[in-house]
Amino acid sequence: MKERAVRAIAECRLIATMSEEPGRITRRFLTQPMHQVHAHLRARMEALGMSVEVDAAGNLRGLWRPESATGNRLLLGSHIDTVPGAGAFDGVLGVTLGLEWVGIAQELGLALPIEVIAFCEEEGVRYAVPFLGSRAVAGIFDQSMLAYEDAEGVRMADAIRAFGLDPAKIGEAALEGDVLGFVEIHIEQGPVLEAENLPLGVVEGIVGQTRLGLRFTGQANHAGTTPMHLRRDALAAAAEWICAVEAQARKAASGLDPGLVATVGKIECEPNAGNVIPGVVSVSLDLRHMDSRVRLGWAEGLIREARTISRRRGIEFEWLEKMSQHAVAMDEQLTLRLEEAVVAAGFSLKTMPSGAGHDAMVMAARVPTAMLFLRSPGGISHHPAETVLVEDVAAGLDVGREFLVRLAGNVG
Amino acid sequence: MKERAVRAIAECRLIATMSEEPGRITRRFLTQPMHQVHAHLRARMEALGMSVEVDAAGNLRGLWRPESATGNRLLLGSHIDTVPGAGAFDGVLGVTLGLEWVGIAQELGLALPIEVIAFCEEEGVRYAVPFLGSRAVAGIFDQSMLAYEDAEGVRMADAIRAFGLDPAKIGEAALEGDVLGFVEIHIEQGPVLEAENLPLGVVEGIVGQTRLGLRFTGQANHAGTTPMHLRRDALAAAAEWICAVEAQARKAASGLDPGLVATVGKIECEPNAGNVIPGVVSVSLDLRHMDSRVRLGWAEGLIREARTISRRRGIEFEWLEKMSQHAVAMDEQLTLRLEEAVVAAGFSLKTMPSGAGHDAMVMAARVPTAMLFLRSPGGISHHPAETVLVEDVAAGLDVGREFLVRLAGNVG
Repeated sequence: MKERAVRAIAECRLIATMSEEPGRITRRFLTQPMHQVHAHLRARMEALGMSVEVDAAGNLRGLWRPESATGNRLLLGSHIDTVPGAGAFDGVLGVTLGLEWVGIAQELGLALPIEVIAFCEEEGVRYAVPFLGSRAVAGIFDQSMLAYEDAEGVRMADAIRAFGLDPAKIGEAALEGDVLGFVEIHIEQGPVLEAENLPLGVVEGIVGQTRLGLRFTGQANHAGTTPMHLRRDALAAAAEWICAVEAQARKAASGLDPGLVATVGKIECEPNAGNVIPGVVSVSLDLRHMDSRVRLGWAEGLIREARTISRRRGIEFEWLEKMSQHAVAMDEQLTLRLEEAVVAAGFSLKTMPSGAGHDAMVMAARVPTAMLFLRSPGGISHHPAETVLVEDVAAGLDVGREFLVRLAGNVG
Repeated sequence: MKERAVRAIAECRLIATMSEEPGRITRRFLTQPMHQVHAHLRARMEALGMSVEVDAAGNLRGLWRPESATGNRLLLGSHIDTVPGAGAFDGVLGVTLGLEWVGIAQELGLALPIEVIAFCEEEGVRYAVPFLGSRAVAGIFDQSMLAYEDAEGVRMADAIRAFGLDPAKIGEAALEGDVLGFVEIHIEQGPVLEAENLPLGVVEGIVGQTRLGLRFTGQANHAGTTPMHLRRDALAAAAEWICAVEAQARKAASGLDPGLVATVGKIECEPNAGNVIPGVVSVSLDLRHMDSRVRLGWAEGLIREARTISRRRGIEFEWLEKMSQHAVAMDEQLTLRLEEAVVAAGFSLKTMPSGAGHDAMVMAARVPTAMLFLRSPGGISHHPAETVLVEDVAAGLDVGREFLVRLAGNVG
């Protein structure tokens, strides 16, 4: 498997050179380098004897159908677009590993049809809306999005046409009922597997997310002439709340609500001058958990906490919900089979939630879906330093073999 | 005195219309509206029988010398420049009240020479260095500042020339030894007098100031995929420190170190995105107290606190001193006389530090200096809503009469 692992990594490094920007990995939805990636992957797929097409949303889809096989097909894949200044593995590795899994199935002579999908869009960079590729495949692409404009004013429908595709045919990209399920392999993009010294983990679901904007309004005043006891300092109020968020979430994550994460990532202060007591401070809250009731309970509790702190300080407090996205569970049967494969391949079984959204989250609305995480050294992602270990990628291939054998046995 | 008070306020309102910006009070060093203010004040001074000149730094100076008087003169005054979007009274009121004090001295036939100075620059807006006017009068104007450029690239020497003055003569603006002392009347720009329901207070000194920049460096990371216990969140560290600053300073101000103020007014967060754990957070600290040892002790203590918090959290911590300015005491004898005048005029005696810098701070380096604060309703300043009460201004005139009588008696 090591040869396959080395090749899968080398292909990611090669695809990383197909970029919109010299010396930097940036590949947005339907931009010029996407043609290069398609050409490369098409050649690879055709060499594997797969039939290849690009659907109207720009997804490259290669189908391997063994002569003996008549049953439903397994879907593999991930996305080939990137954030600006990306690493080489986020998304792309799920495609190159999918092709290696096809190679393994061929080597073993498994009577299992496999379609590998390179989703054209997942990061949401160009049109500020993510998962365009998997939405189309899952049949939940909202046609009104075709009118969206990118930063240069190019409508999505025109971008699709400029890429040589027909936006009117996006509906045809949707899956029919002839699918066994979808498996996405992806780097973890977090430090959990590394911290536990594990090569891989099975994803049990994608956490739900709540995003809030909160605003504390006090009284801007002269830092020298306003005594401590006559202040209504918006930053001090926000700081007290930020400390409460961290302390409470940390305690809960290591106790009653494992997996809970709460982040204040953004802060804006007015007038933001060293010699003026802050008058208005706005902060963000990002809250994620597998259990939507737990997440919503925390959102409520932390808003209450902010209100209590503000009231005690004579501070005005407002909040706004910016996003509330429910958790998505992976398919129980398909995930169980993936877990069996991990154990059969000789690895410790680690199940974990995904704290980030993935194409698997969208595909789960349409087909049984499972997801495999590979360790992210340093937890680093969306950064040129993003990497993977050869042995972890090889582990993903070992798991693939066990998984495919079991699946082919059941359907064969 | 009420008529004089109403007039002094009306003059401030009139001078407020002489602005660089329509509908907004902005009057920087040697800008066009400064000519209008000079013309208005010159006429007022000449009507009072004063001899008037503008020194090379742009200060308008009117001298009242009664025929009978041969002794040294008293200086009165404050500044006539403003911050952008200012109120009508910060500075200007000290000049219009100075002229009313002259009127009172004339009415009483006091044999006391009085010079009223309208300092041309105190706020430090145009050349990012404050107290240009009083520096010149106090004889501590650093000639190298003439090469400073404003935001439009105009050198200070050229601005002085464009105003019709000769920068080579700034040295001549400096006082000789023939001065009794300087008294500045100024709005408090803080809420202390209002909170204690007092019209005025005698300033015992200008607090010392320390300004620091502090930087907390953690690890930026994905808000969804990084568990609470594996985070090094720079904002959480900064928030913990901000809470400590507020709690400790508040406790000390109401206990061992009365008058201490500590302010975190500025915060910058990187990358400052809702879904990314903050990697770097920079904050300011502004620390003020009358006793320099107390102030420096607090600076040290709060830096130590930041270091302790950072070490415990695995955060890198750096700091930088941006300003350290010692406290300036007012002259004991002149201040005592001002206090006697407050009591003689029938008001409660309140002595207090000034938390902000003033021309009096600079003048104290050269001549015996005292300072009188008038209540600031709402503690509001540097804002169009800045105001004064007629009865407080009248109180300032009552105090003036008692003060001038005593001073003339001693020198007459």
